[in-house]
Order: sequence, then structure tokens, then C-alpha cells
Amino acid sequence: MAPSSIAVSIPSYLACMSVTTYSYEQLFDFSRKVFLAIGCSEEDALLASRVLLSADLRGIDSHGIARLSGYVRLWDVKRVNAKPSIRVIHETPSTATVDGDSGLGLVVAPKAMEIAIEKATQSGTGWVAVQNSNHFGIAAYHGMMALEHDMIGICMTNASPLVAPTFSTERLLGTNPICVAVPAGIHPPFVADMATTTAANGKLEILQRKGGVAPIGWIQDKHGKHSTDPHELKAGGALLPLGGDREHGSHKGYALGAIVDIFSAVLSGANYGPWVPPFPAYVPMPAFMPGKGIGHFFGAMRIDAFRPANEFKEHMDAWIQRFREANTMEGHERVIIPGEPEKEMEEERRSNGIPLLGPVVDDLSFLSEKFGIALPHVA
Amino acid sequence: MAPSSIAVSIPSYLACMSVTTYSYEQLFDFSRKVFLAIGCSEEDALLASRVLLSADLRGIDSHGIARLSGYVRLWDVKRVNAKPSIRVIHETPSTATVDGDSGLGLVVAPKAMEIAIEKATQSGTGWVAVQNSNHFGIAAYHGMMALEHDMIGICMTNASPLVAPTFSTERLLGTNPICVAVPAGIHPPFVADMATTTAANGKLEILQRKGGVAPIGWIQDKHGKHSTDPHELKAGGALLPLGGDREHGSHKGYALGAIVDIFSAVLSGANYGPWVPPFPAYVPMPAFMPGKGIGHFFGAMRIDAFRPANEFKEHMDAWIQRFREANTMEGHERVIIPGEPEKEMEEERRSNGIPLLGPVVDDLSFLSEKFGIALPHVA
Repeated sequence: MAPSSIAVSIPSYLACMSVTTYSYEQLFDFSRKVFLAIGCSEEDALLASRVLLSADLRGIDSHGIARLSGYVRLWDVKRVNAKPSIRVIHETPSTATVDGDSGLGLVVAPKAMEIAIEKATQSGTGWVAVQNSNHFGIAAYHGMMALEHDMIGICMTNASPLVAPTFSTERLLGTNPICVAVPAGIHPPFVADMATTTAANGKLEILQRKGGVAPIGWIQDKHGKHSTDPHELKAGGALLPLGGDREHGSHKGYALGAIVDIFSAVLSGANYGPWVPPFPAYVPMPAFMPGKGIGHFFGAMRIDAFRPANEFKEHMDAWIQRFREANTMEGHERVIIPGEPEKEMEEERRSNGIPLLGPVVDDLSFLSEKFGIALPHVA
Repeated sequence: MAPSSIAVSIPSYLACMSVTTYSYEQLFDFSRKVFLAIGCSEEDALLASRVLLSADLRGIDSHGIARLSGYVRLWDVKRVNAKPSIRVIHETPSTATVDGDSGLGLVVAPKAMEIAIEKATQSGTGWVAVQNSNHFGIAAYHGMMALEHDMIGICMTNASPLVAPTFSTERLLGTNPICVAVPAGIHPPFVADMATTTAANGKLEILQRKGGVAPIGWIQDKHGKHSTDPHELKAGGALLPLGGDREHGSHKGYALGAIVDIFSAVLSGANYGPWVPPFPAYVPMPAFMPGKGIGHFFGAMRIDAFRPANEFKEHMDAWIQRFREANTMEGHERVIIPGEPEKEMEEERRSNGIPLLGPVVDDLSFLSEKFGIALPHVA
């Protein structure tokens, strides 16, 4: 397939690879039809597509349409229920525990976040722990749902074990991301969305494709020694918690990943630690499973449960302004506010389209044939 | 002063320094008398001493009785109000905003955490933002208050600006710690209490005393270049966010520190970013102050607001057990559960006493003379 003529939206590491660019609407429509084909309701197919594609828009390519075939493979082996009955199984005025009924995380998560927002509307804050779910796309989508309600949104999830706690040679934690989204006034919102590892798995995948070398502090080999080989995980290695090693604070990254695991799964009744079900459908399930599916945790805090929202937003603007105006080191124009690069990417890709790598287009072709859904035309 | 004969409780870096060991009760009594001398009520003097000394017991020597003279100096310059009227100025069923009335953080913080616990008892969770406070000792004390109620405790605070966000050469954030305390069953609780920097300021102070060299990734010089000089902060340098530099995820440590600042101060109406009042009383106050005092944020989540507490604790025990039993790299016996070393230190120091460095004993002598309070006898 010929490389697209739209070069501006293509990250530099893709420069050497075959790339095809589609519009957001094209990919959304394709995704919707795939979700309908596995039996989702129209409403759920729309919702799942919106969540999935938000990753591509924000430049988190590893979590977007590149994963669509992965979700379908989970459905193939009956690990995803396309018609879940998502239920609140326990609640208080400010909390709920939700059973996702093995639904797509892309559908379960925004519904759980809605419950958190409703609880916050009533009680000031809302906190929802979810069991029996699947991979939910990017945390930022769910956290950011709070923003339009003048709430702070919080979102986290556990994930397949790829990360070794400090001193361990075993992989006991996922990359367990945390998102915190905070509304501002004239400035765009503050949106932090981060894996609790030094580097997200998606970055390692990029190095694998490029044949690159990983910086020290990203991964260890099977003996727990630093490694620069991005393929190390296939040989018993592990991703490292934020910090990299003990001297550089990896015990803090490990503690953060552990907190995400505990909130998402021990609190909800999902699987935790090394027993979290793997995302690739071909990887066997753990022999022992202490809970149901994977777990998420959501929070919504009404700003005006603490102080008037307009007052808060004025101060958030002052906060953002001061950080943007900070003096910087040579070679860097300014301090970046969390969420800014993703917002810029979204604007760019909504206008100019979403570039997909050859292997991702191949995956869509596979789905196109499997379900008889036409691949979108290249513009 | 002769070194104490109790060697077991003295960290190795103190081996070359003059050390005197006092019992917990001796230091508690001295501290209580000092707080009474500045005008605290008996109840507040007891509370402040309990919070302050919990740092010494847990081995966080930088935040314990070594700071007592610092609090007194803040009182000297009228930045600490020994008889505060601590008030809830805004609330909902699950939230409150508290004005600390310039009280000792050691008193304001546990009272605010009590409110969070009460809210959680009523509404499932409780969240309290505090303005107009001062340094509150160690976050773990307040977070751990939740444990006996079968709640998860959360605690954070902003602090004087010592940390440069990624790409910045200016210090815009404090070391802004986060504590999360989670009850378990047969195992001790999980208690993470961590600065959102690669290394806490206390660790740098130790290197300064020893004349040591800081690892790369802890600090930068005034141009934003990596430095190994532990005195770099005096020359316009800064502590680095967890991660150290962009390649190793410092944007995540920066985002975490920012979240703590926003929750503690923008939400509560305290000072934030570079405008947080400095702890040393001799450092001038910022010219511009967007809020009142420093800010904290507390959370309490009832376990049984999500699932039965006994069930949760069984799974926490399984979680802890699995992590403790993990295979480890050469030279490390086992994976450490957050809070374990501090718990062991507390048991040891309750039995064998708390070793104080020469300069700390000198500080106590200064207070002894200032208020006419006898220094405790060395055993």
C-alpha cells in the first residue's frame, strides 16, 4: 500500500514504514460495524468505537484501532460477552461495586464512570470499583468524562503482569495506569494519563519494530539485571516500575502499581497480581484465579463540593499559566502541561486523519474478510 | 557526647557521627512540654507530639523531633497559631473543606483526617481538603488513622518548592508526598508513603552531612543539567521528579507532584506551586500568595462500601503473601511490602530507643534553655 501523502501527523519513528491514513469517521464506522458483527447493541457499538478511537486521536496508537482484532479474538474464545448485563452489586451514597459481566472494557468502563459521576452529583464524590471486565482502552477517555460536569475525574485499571516489583525477577504487576483529569477555565484541562512503569509497553513495541535499543531503566532480564534489549520480555525479562531501580525510586513506582492493583481488583473482586487474565487470547489463562476478570477503579469529585467551581478554575488557570511560563533548560521551549500534547494531536488528527502502520491495516483486512465489512477507501 | 551503646537502631550512615539515644517516652514528654510552652492546649500538645514522634519511630528522622525547633521558629515569627480554631468552611455528605487557622499541621491534619473518617462512616467515603495549615509531619501517620476503622486511608500535602518540573530550571513543586494505607488480615497493613521525587530531601541532607555524592537522576543544577553535588540546591539547582529525566519518565513524577499540589491547594484554597510558604522561618515569604498557608488532602474509603471487609482482608493477605514469596534477584532476600521496613523500625525503636544526631541534640538543648524544660537524661 502506498504511503499517505499526509506526512504531518506521522511520528518520526514511522517514517521508514508503510503507512496508510484514514479519516476518523472512516475508522469509527469500520469499528462500529465490527462491534455490531460480534453482537454488540447499536448503542454499545457506538460507545466502544468512541472509546477505542479516542486513543488513535490522542496519539496513543498502541491502545486504539490496533487492538480491535485483539478484542475480537477475546470474543472468539468467549472471554468477551458482547451483550453484558452490567450490574451494581453493592453500593453506598458515594460508592458502588460493579460486575461487568465479562463485557468489553470499552463499554463497561464508561458506564461505571457514569455511575461515579451520578454518585458525585448526589454526594459530592463518587467511587466505583469494577470486577469482571476486560481491557478498557485509554484511561484518559473515562477520566475526562468528569470534566464537562465540573468534576475531577480519576481512573485506573490493572492489566496483564509484565512488571517486576523492586528486587523481584517475576512479573507480578501490569503497567497499571492512572489518569487524573482536572478542569481549568480558559486553558485546556490538566489530563495526566500514565503507566506506573518507566516506559509504557507501547514504547517498547515501537523499539521492537524499529530494531532499537531501550534506555537503561526500562527493562530487566530474567535475572533482574538491567537490559537494553526490547525483546527481553520474551526471554523472561520484565518491564520496570517508574524509577527503574531502587536507587532511583523504583520502590515508589512499584507501590503506585500496587495501589492501582489493590484499588482496581482487591477492592472490586477482580483478579490481581500475577493472576490477571492476559490480553492476547492465545495466552493461556492463569491456573489459579482469585477473582473475576480484570478490575478498574473510577472516581469523580465535584469541584463545588470543595469550593466554587469558577474560583477553582481561575486558580487552575493561574497554576497552568505559571508552569507554562517557567524558565526552561536549553533545547526545550516550555514546560508541558499534562494532556497538552495529546490535545494537539487530537486536533491535528481530526483534521488530517489517523495514520495506520502496515500491520494494523493487515489486521483490519483480516476483520474485513472475517465479517464481510468493506475496508474504508484511502482518501 | 558519647555515642550510645545501642548500636542496632543506628543507620550505617550515622556510624561516624555523635549519637545519643533516648527512649520514645523521654522524647514524647519533652516534645509535649515544648508544645505546651508555645501555648498549645494539653490535648493538642499530646496530639502534636504523637504525630511528630511517629516519624522518629518509623525511621523518617528528617520529619521527627529534628523538626521541633523549626516549628517553634515558625511560632516565633507568628506563622504558627498555637490555639487555632479549626473549622469546616464547606461540606457535602462525602467532602469537607477545612480552614486550619494557621495551626500546627501536626494538629490540623489528624483533625481533618478524623472528619474524612466520619464522612466515610456516613457516606462510604470521606474527602477533606485543607487550607491555611503548616507542615504536618509524616503523611503515613494520618493515612494510617483509617486502618483501625477498616478503611483505606489516603493523605497528601504540598510543600515548599524544591522540585523542577520536566524541562524547567525553576523550582515549582514541593516533594509533595502521597500516602496510601490499606488494611490486611494476618499480615501488617500495606502502607506506601512516598515523596513524588526520585529521592526525598531528607536523603539529600544525609549526603550533605556525609560529604557524599548523589546518584544521577536525583538533582539538577541551575541550568537543568544532571548533577551529583548534594549541595546543588543552594546554587539554584533543584530536586528531580520521580523518573529523573524525560527518558526515564520524569514527566510522570512531575504529573504526580502536580496532582498532589492541585488536590491539596487549588481545591482547598491554599497556596500552590512556587508560592507555597517555606518551612524555614528565616526564608522570606513569597511576594504573591494566591491562597492561605499550605494545603493537604485526605481520603478515607470504607472497605465494606465495596465488599465485606473480612473478604477484602483475606485477599490482601493473599496479595501480600504472593509478593513476599516472589523469586528475587541475587543479593535480595525478598520483595518488600510497602510499610514493612518502617514497621520493623518502630518495633525496634520502641524497645531500644531513638538515636539522635549531635545537631538534633543541640537543637533540643536550645529549646531546653529557651523554655526552661529539662533535657531528658541519657539512659
